[in-house]
Order: sequence, then structure tokens, then C-alpha cells
Amino acid sequence: MILRSLAERELIRAIRKDFSKPGKDLILGIGDDAAVIKAGEKSLILTTDVLIEDSHFIRTLQPPYWLGRKSLNVNLSDIAAMGGTPRFALLGLGLPPTVGTRWVGEFFTGFKSSATEASVLLIGGDLSQAAAVFISVTAIGEGRTIIRRSGARSGDLIFTSGSLGDAAGGLRLLRKGFKLGQAKRADPLLKAFLDPVPQVELGLRLANSRLATSMIDSSDGLSVDLLHLCEESGLGAEVELGRLPISPQLWDFEKDPYPLALHGGEDYQLVFTVSPAKYTAALALSKKIAVTPIGRMTKAKGIYVIDQNGKKEILPVKGYQHFKSR
Amino acid sequence: MILRSLAERELIRAIRKDFSKPGKDLILGIGDDAAVIKAGEKSLILTTDVLIEDSHFIRTLQPPYWLGRKSLNVNLSDIAAMGGTPRFALLGLGLPPTVGTRWVGEFFTGFKSSATEASVLLIGGDLSQAAAVFISVTAIGEGRTIIRRSGARSGDLIFTSGSLGDAAGGLRLLRKGFKLGQAKRADPLLKAFLDPVPQVELGLRLANSRLATSMIDSSDGLSVDLLHLCEESGLGAEVELGRLPISPQLWDFEKDPYPLALHGGEDYQLVFTVSPAKYTAALALSKKIAVTPIGRMTKAKGIYVIDQNGKKEILPVKGYQHFKSR
Repeated sequence: MILRSLAERELIRAIRKDFSKPGKDLILGIGDDAAVIKAGEKSLILTTDVLIEDSHFIRTLQPPYWLGRKSLNVNLSDIAAMGGTPRFALLGLGLPPTVGTRWVGEFFTGFKSSATEASVLLIGGDLSQAAAVFISVTAIGEGRTIIRRSGARSGDLIFTSGSLGDAAGGLRLLRKGFKLGQAKRADPLLKAFLDPVPQVELGLRLANSRLATSMIDSSDGLSVDLLHLCEESGLGAEVELGRLPISPQLWDFEKDPYPLALHGGEDYQLVFTVSPAKYTAALALSKKIAVTPIGRMTKAKGIYVIDQNGKKEILPVKGYQHFKSR
Repeated sequence: MILRSLAERELIRAIRKDFSKPGKDLILGIGDDAAVIKAGEKSLILTTDVLIEDSHFIRTLQPPYWLGRKSLNVNLSDIAAMGGTPRFALLGLGLPPTVGTRWVGEFFTGFKSSATEASVLLIGGDLSQAAAVFISVTAIGEGRTIIRRSGARSGDLIFTSGSLGDAAGGLRLLRKGFKLGQAKRADPLLKAFLDPVPQVELGLRLANSRLATSMIDSSDGLSVDLLHLCEESGLGAEVELGRLPISPQLWDFEKDPYPLALHGGEDYQLVFTVSPAKYTAALALSKKIAVTPIGRMTKAKGIYVIDQNGKKEILPVKGYQHFKSR
């Protein structure tokens, strides 16, 4: 989960180039949703995400219980995007004296509730004072079949789980003063932002069935996440605007929800590619959560969006700058 | 590495109680220098440490190159304190726009230099904007014989590697305006603070030889770290002031170096216990770095210090509040 996505991409590219080297037991290093190391017969999947006050969250908008859940769940989403099963977590926490013990208690209650749901054990951490809340979670999962960002082939269909743009729509409502439990139509959007659900079961099914050729979670916004997938797979992509799964709730609150669906981010859905031959099998996965084909991978580089009139344009790659320091 | 050690201990105790439960593949959870999980035939050792600007470091005093090294090395010290070999690291980084690319470049150069020295691979991370620099490192090591904090027996001798108080003495000099390379007598102290060396080889030898019954690294100050060891082992301790290894350089700059040696912290030496029968074998370990017996574990609870006149007093447990937000 990243803020100034493009500047950061430059920095990550430099770091990756500098630090990339093969190593004993290293299956996959920097550059995917998570790293993978060999551990006996299995692979261990490791990922770390930071959540910084006023960059990734605003304390006055996000109650600590939900923040505790989200700080673990965004990491579990990275494990899901590799096709893994989350197992363990470590938590680094910087806390200003102003937060108080009640805030901390509710944060940990939330963290624990999502850990329990996912059968994840908190095995270590570090706490310290800080000027603003800083949360750093490392999650460890395991898997047998690992789905990378780099496996897509030209012609593969692009799918996304769930709906897109709900989280960004929910944040807009939070900013307008909406609160959970006040308006029935608003709640699913608020929930999407406050309490995203990592798609662990779907990721696992996609890995075990070997249906997905590549996969990423939609944390930075579809345009940014697709760019990662395209870069790693050495391909381009076409997205059909009319196919984007947009929830009725988002339509209720947004005249034009497409920018949110394309660039809003924080949805933590799985975006994955499937060979055309497996189209029907992929659709049949929609048991717990719908999966929707939204486009295809292309040999030609570049990411394009095709609007409802069939007009094809370059898709600008941008993540929304949700918070002041973004 | 922890600031308000006592308040934090309360919080950690509550979290530990709340999160402690046995789990498949979990060998050791919250409460030691690192967690241990089963991974095939080996054990994986996992630890996370946060370094927060103005809590753990001051940007104007610590050049980014040294900070990069230290942010990895304090984690490797935790792996060393379990008797493990460091293998991998993940890095979470919050950076204010004011730091600039040069600072970031030098930080990564430092991080890489210590990673290379220790044969550690950086396998993942997350970068974000923040109001102040926040560094979170997760290190992963492996080991066969794991040395816990809890294994000490009454009568065991307490050893420390290296000398104590140098890092705290070095910080005092930095605050007075000393810089590396300006004064020959000051450099070892400055280095001890800016660039602590994780005692990986010693930790490994202590584990493989099964000489140490318990072990911790001295990050918070001997008094705090001994308290951890005593609590986990269900014992007390006596420390002989006259035996504390204090460097000639620290004597040069401090009239009374004992408070720094007892409470200064940030030394990242290994504090370990050895059965009296293995006293000579333990002393013989002093190949790369000296090890010194400084006291013994006692059945009676409480930590006492015996001064040069044989007077025995309770050792106050406190870590120094080095920085303003501590």
C-alpha cells in the first residue's frame, strides 16, 4: 500500500536493481506482492506493509478497532495475492502519548479479531513512542503453488474479484461525516474502506486449481496494480470500462464512479489473469465472492481503456492521493 | 529496542497474555528476543524492530549510512541472541519529503553494506511518506539449537560479551559535537553507538556448543535486559560492579561509567548464562570478542548489584531516556 505511487516506483526499481541477487533458499525477492523462501517442502510467503497516520489513515476517521483489523488484513491480502495461506504476523507499532490506553486496547482487539478469523498467530513485535501512529505489519504465509505477477500471457483474460471503487467511495463518505450504522446504503462503502476483506480463500482456490496465470491485489488502484502486472509479465492490457464491477451502492453516491473504480485503490480485491480456455472454470469460482472479467492482456505494451462507445484511450496510471501527505 | 521500558513492559505483558496460544508449527511466540517457527527440519527465527526518529535516533546526529547499517544490525542482534544465523530481511520505511534522495541513497548503501557482511538478503519492503523517519525491519534467521531467555538455572554465571556503556558514552559525545574521525579516543565510543556490531558468530557458537543456558542481547540496558532474563527464567540475579567490562575509552570520558554500563543500553552485546561447570569453556570463547563473567543467577528473586566494597543493593531497573520523546 503506497502513496506517491510513481515516485515510489522509481525508488523501488532502484532498490530492487541494487538488492536483487539470487540466494540460497530464495524463490522470489523484491517486486511481487510478497517474497517467497524455501522452507522444507513448503514455500514461506513473507510481506510487510506500513500504515502511517495521515498518509494511510486519519485517526479521527478510522476507529482503532477497524484500524487494527485493516493493518493485519492488508498484509493478508498480499499473501492471498500469492495464493498462500496466512499463518503468522509480527507487529511494529509507534504510538504518540496522546492515543491513550483505550485506543491501544481497541486497536489490539481489532487486530486480534482478524487474526482469529484468519487463524493467524501474532508471534512478535516492537512498540515505541512516536510523534504519530505508525503501524508496520509483517505477515508470513505458506503455499505450494505460488502465483506471481509475472505469469500472464498475451490474450489472457483479466478478472477482478468483488467490486471496484467502493473503498474510495467509502472514504469520501467518511470525509463527509458519514458513520457506520447511520445509513444502510452507505454502510457497504464505509465497510469497504474501514474493514477490507482479504480474499484468502479465492487466492488459494486460484492457486490450487492453477487457474490464474498471474495475480496481484488491488491496493493502489486498478490502473497502478495493472501496470505492475503488465510490467512484470512484459505485456500490455485493455480494460473495458463497461465491464468494471461497480456496486449499486457506489452508483447511489457517485454520478461517475469510474474514476474511483480505476484509480481509487484500497479495494484489496484480487486482480488475476486466466487463459481464455479456462474462462468458464474461472467464472465458476464465484462462490463466496463474484469474479468478473474486465479485459485482456495484450502483446502491445501500454494499458488502454475501452469506453462504452468502443473508444480506446490510454489509461492514465495514477493512484488517488487520499490524504494530505500523499 | 524499546523506550519507556517499564510502561512498555506492562503493555507487552497484556498483549502477550491476550495473544499467547500454542499453534501448529509455532515453537516460541511473543516474549523472547525473537519468535521461532518450525520450517521443515530447521527452525526459522523471526524478529521485528522499529527505529523512530527522535525516539531511537536523531537525524542530525546519525548520518544515514550508519543508520541504515544500525537498522538492520539491531535486528541481527536479536537473531544472534537466539543462537541463529540471519538469512533474510524486510524493510518498512516512512520518509518525510525533507530527507531527499541523497539521504535515502546513503541509508540504503549502509543497509546493504551490513546485509552483505552478514549474507542477509533484502527480500521485500514497503515505502511511504511520513511526517518523521520511521524504520521497521523484520529479520528472518534460521537455527537448530535455540537459546531462550528462560533457560537459566540458579547458580549459573552471567556473562556479557564486549564492553558495556560504550554506546551510551558515544551518544553523549555525539551530543557534545564529537564526530567520527576527529578524536582517536572518542571514535570507539561513537562507533559503538552509531554502528553496533551484532554478535552473530558468538551467538552461534554458544548455541552449537550448548554452553549458554539462556541469552538476551543488551539493547535496553543491562538492568532491563537482566530483568527480562530473570523474569523468563523465574530467578533473581547478582551483578558484581567491579567485574563489569568497561572500556578504557569510556573511562577517559566518564568519571563514573557504571550508570552507563548498567542502564545505558544500545550496546547490543550478548548477555548469557553458563553453568558453573562450563566456566572455563565459556571463557575460552573469547576469540573474536571478549566474554566476561559479571555475576550469577540466584534462586532468590530480585536483581542486586554488589559494589567494590562488597555492599549489596537492589539494582534499580531503568533504561536511559536518551531522546526527547522517550
